[in-house]
Amino acid sequence: MKNPQLNKHGELQHLLGIDGLPKKIITHILDTASTFVDIGERELKKVPLMHGKSVFNLFFENSTRTRTTFEIAAKRLSADVINLNIAASSASKGESLLDTIDNLAAMHADMFVVRHATSGAPFMIAQHLNDTKQHHVHVVNAGDGRHEHPTQGLLDMYTIRHYKKDFANLTVAIVGDVLHSRVARSDIHALTTLGAAEVRVIGPRTLLPSGLEQMGVRVFTDMNAGLKDVDVIIMLRLQNERMSGALLPSTQEYFKQYGLTPERLALAKSDAIVMHPGPMNRGVEIDSAVADGPQAVILSQVTFGIAVRMAVMSIVSGSKA
Amino acid sequence: MKNPQLNKHGELQHLLGIDGLPKKIITHILDTASTFVDIGERELKKVPLMHGKSVFNLFFENSTRTRTTFEIAAKRLSADVINLNIAASSASKGESLLDTIDNLAAMHADMFVVRHATSGAPFMIAQHLNDTKQHHVHVVNAGDGRHEHPTQGLLDMYTIRHYKKDFANLTVAIVGDVLHSRVARSDIHALTTLGAAEVRVIGPRTLLPSGLEQMGVRVFTDMNAGLKDVDVIIMLRLQNERMSGALLPSTQEYFKQYGLTPERLALAKSDAIVMHPGPMNRGVEIDSAVADGPQAVILSQVTFGIAVRMAVMSIVSGSKA
Amino acid sequence: MKNPQLNKHGELQHLLGIDGLPKKIITHILDTASTFVDIGERELKKVPLMHGKSVFNLFFENSTRTRTTFEIAAKRLSADVINLNIAASSASKGESLLDTIDNLAAMHADMFVVRHATSGAPFMIAQHLNDTKQHHVHVVNAGDGRHEHPTQGLLDMYTIRHYKKDFANLTVAIVGDVLHSRVARSDIHALTTLGAAEVRVIGPRTLLPSGLEQMGVRVFTDMNAGLKDVDVIIMLRLQNERMSGALLPSTQEYFKQYGLTPERLALAKSDAIVMHPGPMNRGVEIDSAVADGPQAVILSQVTFGIAVRMAVMSIVSGSKA
Repeated sequence: MKNPQLNKHGELQHLLGIDGLPKKIITHILDTASTFVDIGERELKKVPLMHGKSVFNLFFENSTRTRTTFEIAAKRLSADVINLNIAASSASKGESLLDTIDNLAAMHADMFVVRHATSGAPFMIAQHLNDTKQHHVHVVNAGDGRHEHPTQGLLDMYTIRHYKKDFANLTVAIVGDVLHSRVARSDIHALTTLGAAEVRVIGPRTLLPSGLEQMGVRVFTDMNAGLKDVDVIIMLRLQNERMSGALLPSTQEYFKQYGLTPERLALAKSDAIVMHPGPMNRGVEIDSAVADGPQAVILSQVTFGIAVRMAVMSIVSGSKA
Repeated sequence: MKNPQLNKHGELQHLLGIDGLPKKIITHILDTASTFVDIGERELKKVPLMHGKSVFNLFFENSTRTRTTFEIAAKRLSADVINLNIAASSASKGESLLDTIDNLAAMHADMFVVRHATSGAPFMIAQHLNDTKQHHVHVVNAGDGRHEHPTQGLLDMYTIRHYKKDFANLTVAIVGDVLHSRVARSDIHALTTLGAAEVRVIGPRTLLPSGLEQMGVRVFTDMNAGLKDVDVIIMLRLQNERMSGALLPSTQEYFKQYGLTPERLALAKSDAIVMHPGPMNRGVEIDSAVADGPQAVILSQVTFGIAVRMAVMSIVSGSKA
Repeated sequence: MKNPQLNKHGELQHLLGIDGLPKKIITHILDTASTFVDIGERELKKVPLMHGKSVFNLFFENSTRTRTTFEIAAKRLSADVINLNIAASSASKGESLLDTIDNLAAMHADMFVVRHATSGAPFMIAQHLNDTKQHHVHVVNAGDGRHEHPTQGLLDMYTIRHYKKDFANLTVAIVGDVLHSRVARSDIHALTTLGAAEVRVIGPRTLLPSGLEQMGVRVFTDMNAGLKDVDVIIMLRLQNERMSGALLPSTQEYFKQYGLTPERLALAKSDAIVMHPGPMNRGVEIDSAVADGPQAVILSQVTFGIAVRMAVMSIVSGSKA
């Protein structure tokens, strides 16, 4: 099935995932984002690019933080934002997902920012809108199941490019619960597309999916070996629900083996940067001395994240079917 | 008691119900709405008619979808919108409804969009605001108990007029759980006021209220007889909570007797339109083949609904006491 | 520890409490508020003072009413408002309060309106922002534990000044559950700073904190004695959770001893005004005849409250570190 995120001219009509996104489009998003980074620091933080447009935050899975970043990005583009916590609404009235979508589209929505616990839900929505010629609505995936979280992947790339300029010589390590992480999946696709020299994945065998090698990454279960001479470390959040499950002995044990401490960080290059998608579990996957240390760029990720989301929203809303 | 929705000049100061609304005012709302239909399709979907006004969505009963339609309508009129889920707030602190109303009015509110489980609540609020000379606040009923849902009634009339032009020769059938339906009540009042040739109500005897004949409608318990040669079919939603109650044997049985199938639809005029206020229960009151078929105008209702709500809000907010 | 609400030039950078606020600053806020009172009555209720600024309502404790007043105030200043019900979000993911704050600050927030069940939380947040040189974010305390509710204190002062002009000759009585009331604490600090002739506190001994005399107030347990010849009566809300606790025999008994009835009101000066922060418990701390009577200025407090919050927000957001 053709990926519905590109229109027939190869332009970005929806943002569903980084898998399959051409390097040219990723670079265009990052370049556009850089023009928005300054806006956040101005007195007047708004631009009229989406004035009069209606953006719907469709959160079938609750995530206040992610919803907030999209809400701010949309408002700084001067769009009207409607927040819908769908878990608590029509879904409970037994309406089908696609009936909900058709209804909202009929209100002349311009964009759906979709968060869903099911992998592929934003894809299905975009496909349906294309099939039914409701081309005025653009879909942005704000995280779907274990599949992708493309705006997080893009903001991670923005952050790496900001600090390291060129991807060609970089070794990047992604550490932790890769199995359940849509962030890891988006990051891996982005890094390989942008031509990072080496992408490593580090974690306990129970938290690593099969097939990683085919994605072009090197797999490490030994944290110390994996961190050796890397330029970028992307720590993943250990989901609370995994912590006392069958996959992990205990959070203390996890920290002992995979927590990023100053000692471990010293194994990486001296100018390595440390990233984390947040919210952090201090003392579980990352030591506070590292989280608050000079190599952490975690808050810069947040700042760049707003600009990247503004870029994505303005680009897709400007595309035609 | 005088209906508080009209001021002494006979203008619409609040919209509380269609019962008692003169034909001239209904027609004025529909005519105004038609000027807003185009706006939804423009690049810039906003008009400044309510710029600087504060619209409060007072939802004492949760309804994400209806709240969303009013929120969009208000924002496209450039109003500021404040969403209050009152069920979860002051009410739980033991404050009386009218104290809550007085408080919000004192914040220089311009409009209350009120949804309430109790029939007559918006009426009581409007009466209180008039009695206490808080004339700056206008009330719009967004559904009260089993009483009325006037903006749904008006958007249904807009839809019928759009497809059928003139009401004078129309036979309209309203099908389903009329007993619990505020939509049915608003539709019946609107259709009789606008001079529809014949209004029919179809449903099982347990779901039909007494006194329907006095409202000027013909009552059918046989679906096939009731649909014969009608121009417009308005299907009602079967509330989940009725489905396994004492009033109905089962949803399968209901569908067998009152579900709108292609075969049944064929009994109506060949150019009959099918309407539904949403959210639909596919396979309960309506067959998917009909819901997605060429005679269904259900999504047009949604689109027209935004325009009709913009019309209502701009008209009442422009009226004086 | 230095109070972080004033910058090195003595200007209001954050509003954390009235304790320690110079008279000059309180007066400046009230004077600024008076320019905003008219705005609420205009057709166009907005001024562009905070256009393009991002105001975050951070409500760690739910309060729809207070959140609404700040939301309206911010929107009338043309700010973008983001509502975060933190109780239900990141906090539940185990993130620390300061990590949440840093994250939101990194989104280029301009203002945090903070409501928190813990006394001192807004103070700690402001201190942290100052310490980490995140000077672009201003904090406004919207009520913290039993500590302060400074905007309520300021709107009370605005109301008193509006009706009584000068504080110098006024006797003000604060009645009820002073022990648990952040409003009482803010009012006492404000009244003593503004030079009220006499501040009285009236309540049952179990609901009066120790150390009141040191704050410069006269303590009464006898309602009739306490109300004698006062100019202003500020009734406090009796929190539901106290009503059947160990501190009070019953609400009937409370009303008998401390409820404000017309008879008791007659003990005060004939032109005394009656205030209440809302929501009222009619028949518990106040009789409806008083609440709705000519001496009550309770709804004026609400109206002035919007203007006072506009004043606070515009003043702090205009200050530099």
